[in-house]
Amino acid sequence: MNFTILIFLSLFCGLIMAEDGVHALGTGTISEKHSCSPDMCELMKEFGIMRQKLGVLETSLKDSDTRLKNSENQILELKNNERPMIVFSAAIGGDGNIGPFNTDTTLVYRAVKTNIGNAYSKITGIFTAPVEGMYYFTFFYHARGAHPAVLILMRNNHGVVMTGDHSTSSDGADNGGNAAFLQLQRGDHVYVRLFADTHVWRNGFITTFSGFLVGHV
Amino acid sequence: MNFTILIFLSLFCGLIMAEDGVHALGTGTISEKHSCSPDMCELMKEFGIMRQKLGVLETSLKDSDTRLKNSENQILELKNNERPMIVFSAAIGGDGNIGPFNTDTTLVYRAVKTNIGNAYSKITGIFTAPVEGMYYFTFFYHARGAHPAVLILMRNNHGVVMTGDHSTSSDGADNGGNAAFLQLQRGDHVYVRLFADTHVWRNGFITTFSGFLVGHV
Amino acid sequence: MNFTILIFLSLFCGLIMAEDGVHALGTGTISEKHSCSPDMCELMKEFGIMRQKLGVLETSLKDSDTRLKNSENQILELKNNERPMIVFSAAIGGDGNIGPFNTDTTLVYRAVKTNIGNAYSKITGIFTAPVEGMYYFTFFYHARGAHPAVLILMRNNHGVVMTGDHSTSSDGADNGGNAAFLQLQRGDHVYVRLFADTHVWRNGFITTFSGFLVGHV
Repeated sequence: MNFTILIFLSLFCGLIMAEDGVHALGTGTISEKHSCSPDMCELMKEFGIMRQKLGVLETSLKDSDTRLKNSENQILELKNNERPMIVFSAAIGGDGNIGPFNTDTTLVYRAVKTNIGNAYSKITGIFTAPVEGMYYFTFFYHARGAHPAVLILMRNNHGVVMTGDHSTSSDGADNGGNAAFLQLQRGDHVYVRLFADTHVWRNGFITTFSGFLVGHV
Repeated sequence: MNFTILIFLSLFCGLIMAEDGVHALGTGTISEKHSCSPDMCELMKEFGIMRQKLGVLETSLKDSDTRLKNSENQILELKNNERPMIVFSAAIGGDGNIGPFNTDTTLVYRAVKTNIGNAYSKITGIFTAPVEGMYYFTFFYHARGAHPAVLILMRNNHGVVMTGDHSTSSDGADNGGNAAFLQLQRGDHVYVRLFADTHVWRNGFITTFSGFLVGHV
Repeated sequence: MNFTILIFLSLFCGLIMAEDGVHALGTGTISEKHSCSPDMCELMKEFGIMRQKLGVLETSLKDSDTRLKNSENQILELKNNERPMIVFSAAIGGDGNIGPFNTDTTLVYRAVKTNIGNAYSKITGIFTAPVEGMYYFTFFYHARGAHPAVLILMRNNHGVVMTGDHSTSSDGADNGGNAAFLQLQRGDHVYVRLFADTHVWRNGFITTFSGFLVGHV
């Protein structure tokens, strides 16, 4: 029972195919051992054509599958490269000075303007990275001249960049700010620390802290 | 005419298939009611194999279609997450002071450095969000000491963050700036307002306003 | 040999199909010229069904191919829109003043905080755009009052935005900063130039320069 379609075609159609010079199956030589009725031969021929088409389809589908897998992998990669929206802006808010304190103090910016992803806490003033990645932070302050102002952007327990000014009796107030891109691990804390014996001004959303996830590194 | 391929195969091939112990169709039991010629039986067998292959192809194509639909949806999602490039930077430009004015005045930054997406108007000084999303804005000023300087970043009619300083006779000039991330609706206006009786310095591209679309929220 | 499946079916199945009123092939009228054995007719019918299914599969696969090509193109577009992570933050570092110098001098921020993509050189202080695109730059300084401070963000040989202040005997120090979005060509240089006869303060990572690739334009 190991006859191929070629062989059994040869049993039926050999003579007629030979007469017509038609190799309907396109599968090469057809032996001319047997004859078949025209109807049966026609069926054989149609069968062969269908078989060929099926083969073509199988190959096409295999190619499609390879391309589809490739596309799926690339989509996965693109999705992995997508960053979640993590962004916050907050101001100190309230009235008058905050500080001076006896010790370095984390500034708590209570007037939250934006906090998508809830990574910034207005209770503690601390931003906690919800995913690893590259983040941008910027902070600005305004302070009266009666005391100095010194603010440091902290990552965990390390200072990153700073801004500040001396006290001055002649100039009523001073402004400052800074910014940094920081590569953070998940769970890293970023916050602004106010130096002991220094102060900033609360009013008018003038002393602020902002940040966002730039993307995966 | 509700015979299945199994049934009509049984009419032809029963005996021979039984003899050979071959169940070429792979479709289970074949009754042994009728006999068929070896040629016809071979055809039946081939036909059955092809039928099976066709079934496999149909299933594969259905799977492919499901995966393709899934990929298409994910691509659509990725495209929807793509942000258009909307970004601007402009400085006041010109010479000398701008202000003081009797009333609060929208600052018009006429020296446009960058304006991709044309969302910032150098005629009005107003940025109009062309799409909803998360935006970042930052602004810096320089001012002489003769008058105070107070600048507020506005969203529609509401102040967001501020910078400014008192006038001072002893200190020749002051600088300030601020920044905020703002979630905007399409059509929202963002601009910088200079308080009445305050001023900023034009020269040297020192008083600036910048912003960009961070992404969809 | 140009018989179609319809025609040769007509040779075999005409009568029986007519009797049953079944047009198994779903391919329209079947002439009633010839008769066929019930078995042969059943085979013809099954063959016709399979042929139809094959046609459906061919069409489906062609549709799939079109959709797959479309998806592949969209993935390519999405990948092209992806930006590489190019981002840096650096502070001057060291102790005391930098400047004043006799001539304008490029500030070299030696204390590198972040430099993904290595586009910023801590040897020269120059950021070189590794790809065309939209970039954001921001810089902050602190300076004592003994001398003025004037810093300009430069693109190649052109100043973009500036910050600075006069010297002042009464106010101990001053802060300033600025920012700009810049559309850069590959190879463009961006750096901060300190004006002749002016100075900034090194300590505490207080004088900084940062930037990142926002995306393709």
